[in-house]
Amino acid sequence: METERRIEGSKDALLEELKEFLRMPSISARPEDDGGFRACAEWVADKLRDAGAEARIMETEGQPVVYAEIGEGSRTLLSYGHYDVQPPEPLDLWESDPFGPTVRDGSLYARGVADDKGDVLARIQALRLYIQEHGPLPFKLKFLIEGEEEVGSPNLAAFVRANADLLSADACLWEGAMKDEAGRPSIECGTKGMAYVELRARGASHDLHSMYGGVAPNPVWRLVQALRTIKDENGEITLDGFEDLIEPPSDEELEAIRKIPFDDAALRKLWGVEALDRNLTGEAALREYLLRPTANIAGILGGYTGPGSKTIVPSEAFVKMDFRLVVGQSPGPVLELLRAHLDRRGFGDVEVVDLHGVEAAKTPVGSPVVQTAVGAWEDLGRDDAVVFPTIGGSGPTSLFATELGIPTIMTGNVANAESRIHSPNESVRLADYFEAVGYFARFFERFGREGYPS
Amino acid sequence: METERRIEGSKDALLEELKEFLRMPSISARPEDDGGFRACAEWVADKLRDAGAEARIMETEGQPVVYAEIGEGSRTLLSYGHYDVQPPEPLDLWESDPFGPTVRDGSLYARGVADDKGDVLARIQALRLYIQEHGPLPFKLKFLIEGEEEVGSPNLAAFVRANADLLSADACLWEGAMKDEAGRPSIECGTKGMAYVELRARGASHDLHSMYGGVAPNPVWRLVQALRTIKDENGEITLDGFEDLIEPPSDEELEAIRKIPFDDAALRKLWGVEALDRNLTGEAALREYLLRPTANIAGILGGYTGPGSKTIVPSEAFVKMDFRLVVGQSPGPVLELLRAHLDRRGFGDVEVVDLHGVEAAKTPVGSPVVQTAVGAWEDLGRDDAVVFPTIGGSGPTSLFATELGIPTIMTGNVANAESRIHSPNESVRLADYFEAVGYFARFFERFGREGYPS
Repeated sequence: METERRIEGSKDALLEELKEFLRMPSISARPEDDGGFRACAEWVADKLRDAGAEARIMETEGQPVVYAEIGEGSRTLLSYGHYDVQPPEPLDLWESDPFGPTVRDGSLYARGVADDKGDVLARIQALRLYIQEHGPLPFKLKFLIEGEEEVGSPNLAAFVRANADLLSADACLWEGAMKDEAGRPSIECGTKGMAYVELRARGASHDLHSMYGGVAPNPVWRLVQALRTIKDENGEITLDGFEDLIEPPSDEELEAIRKIPFDDAALRKLWGVEALDRNLTGEAALREYLLRPTANIAGILGGYTGPGSKTIVPSEAFVKMDFRLVVGQSPGPVLELLRAHLDRRGFGDVEVVDLHGVEAAKTPVGSPVVQTAVGAWEDLGRDDAVVFPTIGGSGPTSLFATELGIPTIMTGNVANAESRIHSPNESVRLADYFEAVGYFARFFERFGREGYPS
Repeated sequence: METERRIEGSKDALLEELKEFLRMPSISARPEDDGGFRACAEWVADKLRDAGAEARIMETEGQPVVYAEIGEGSRTLLSYGHYDVQPPEPLDLWESDPFGPTVRDGSLYARGVADDKGDVLARIQALRLYIQEHGPLPFKLKFLIEGEEEVGSPNLAAFVRANADLLSADACLWEGAMKDEAGRPSIECGTKGMAYVELRARGASHDLHSMYGGVAPNPVWRLVQALRTIKDENGEITLDGFEDLIEPPSDEELEAIRKIPFDDAALRKLWGVEALDRNLTGEAALREYLLRPTANIAGILGGYTGPGSKTIVPSEAFVKMDFRLVVGQSPGPVLELLRAHLDRRGFGDVEVVDLHGVEAAKTPVGSPVVQTAVGAWEDLGRDDAVVFPTIGGSGPTSLFATELGIPTIMTGNVANAESRIHSPNESVRLADYFEAVGYFARFFERFGREGYPS
């Protein structure tokens, strides 16, 4: 209660500090645009030092990482976040300057406020409030705040591997999750992996007159024939060996899934569709969404696609596919399966181009850190936090959860379902922001307790 | 022989006349670009009058038709051609002015020389030469020379139907055919029909994050699932009822097919492919090419098709298909089959958009006009003319062959396999041009003989 009183009494100062952070246009897609990109990293390091941490700027092949440590104890908590932001374009759709943070109707609008500057600063402010109330931190808290998340973290894996000892921890708070449409916070324990590929087919060396449609090889038909071997007529994935790799969900995961509020009718309405894929509904849809891999077609192109009719046999075609993977299905082996699957069926001519791979990762929903996260929400009077064994999306959490073996979760929920992350008019509700500051302070209290995690 | 001597003695004048025709940029895609579009029609009418015909300009909803008649007798021959040309672009690829006809290495280069001005004028010059040698034409010869062929003859059907009596004839010489790679002339007795459609599928009202790939309807997958019902895994068309409509080829057509020189190895080399579709070779490939319908994919588009990876479930997708049809398969009923086929399999949501339809048409290879055409080539010492029961391409020959019931063929072969019709540096060989003038004169001789067609 002390923490909440302190937050209540210093809202203006906390908000002003956040606005200062948001005024720095740390756009990692074009750091050269702004001489202040590194200044933003320095600002974060200074804030950590103000809170009593030892902070330093660590160089990478790209933008620098802010690393900090504070506290002493038998346990270690690692906090991951990023100080870089997406480009603000299209500028004309913003109702206020993306780098001139503005409060309207109880929400704060600025590029990066939801992803991820609000989350980063809420944790630092929570640390300060904790120390003000309780004194020195009884555990070690490590901060890793990178500057390249919005361009795909190209140097994060190398950094983590080179600094494995430095980053060792008992739990990791990954960047932060969103409240759902009903305002419920979430605790997310895993991310799906991904194998993003392009399948390419070729026909004649140039487009042909379609009078040859009966005899010329057609690369679009070739892709259709290859794709029909990847999903059956019912839409079930039929990639040889793909299913066998899946580590089945645990009973506790299935139990957690059953507790997740999921309204497929609301989703259909939101998307403007009469039915979900394969007419999935209810828990079956939710399990498919969270626990099953996908073989999604993200794009396809071949031949003439302008207005009206043009009569050709296209010379080439490609399809872009993202396979969202679950634990057990690493992108490398999945690519090998796909190649062998196509070869076995006579599609040796269909090229498979590996564009991008991410490992799936999961932290057991029964892990102490998940209990801590749930308890911290309860401390705030919230019994509506929803535990997700995994989310449908992907991210590099495996670097921590799998490679370093650190139980890793996403919570805190500065953002909400309408935060417009990566879009114009990005925002967070002020109430959610201050609640998150209090939440992280409660989380630190629980993590530092004697006898944790019992 | 007299005709050949006259041609030999007046080559310069014949060529100069052709060049005059070619200098008029009668581009039907943009007739307003050139005040001389109608002047071109007038020029053609004047040339017909010079030859002794009664010629007139007949208006349509679009560009005017040149119509002419000459001669008297019990038989009537109708000659179809067009005075309009394709746009010349891209201009920078032309080695000489597209409307400044130029002779290089024995070939004449200009837009329209191969398609169709050379063909049109060769017939008029042949008529003049015939009359110089033999006197009045002993049959009625009708010319229909339209000005909108290169924009799809939008007003031809209405014109033909409104003037059915005027156009009645015993045989029709359609615009002209090309010599093949070996220099052989052809006599082509039919064209395939076409049903050009777009199949459209829709998913959510906007592109979704592909984390929903397992539950969101994906319109590209939807098209793939629909397409797999249209061809089986061996590439054979499986559209319900499609095969049943086909009128099987006659014994004489099959016999004609067997006489067609067809080198599938040369085709594979030309196209740069290891095999034809379904590994077709030899006569099987030729029969497929000429006698069978197709279900070609001319283009497909859906979702993200830029560089690298973007993770979305597309909101919409379409595929453009041209079904080349054989006699018996009218585009209207084929569209109905397609709609019913998709509905029967639960693809009622896949929209079928009718973009374009053409009827197939065939003239029996045993028709008198075909014998006349073969004989006229023999008169020139050529026993290598190849009779095609039909070609792989489509065109509005059914207006004459089917609706008016006039046996209709394509021959004369001013153009050759390298004439680059519709492309920069369109050309004909001068030798082919003068041969065609002589050929049409021989054709008139045979068509006018006592006791024809025996």
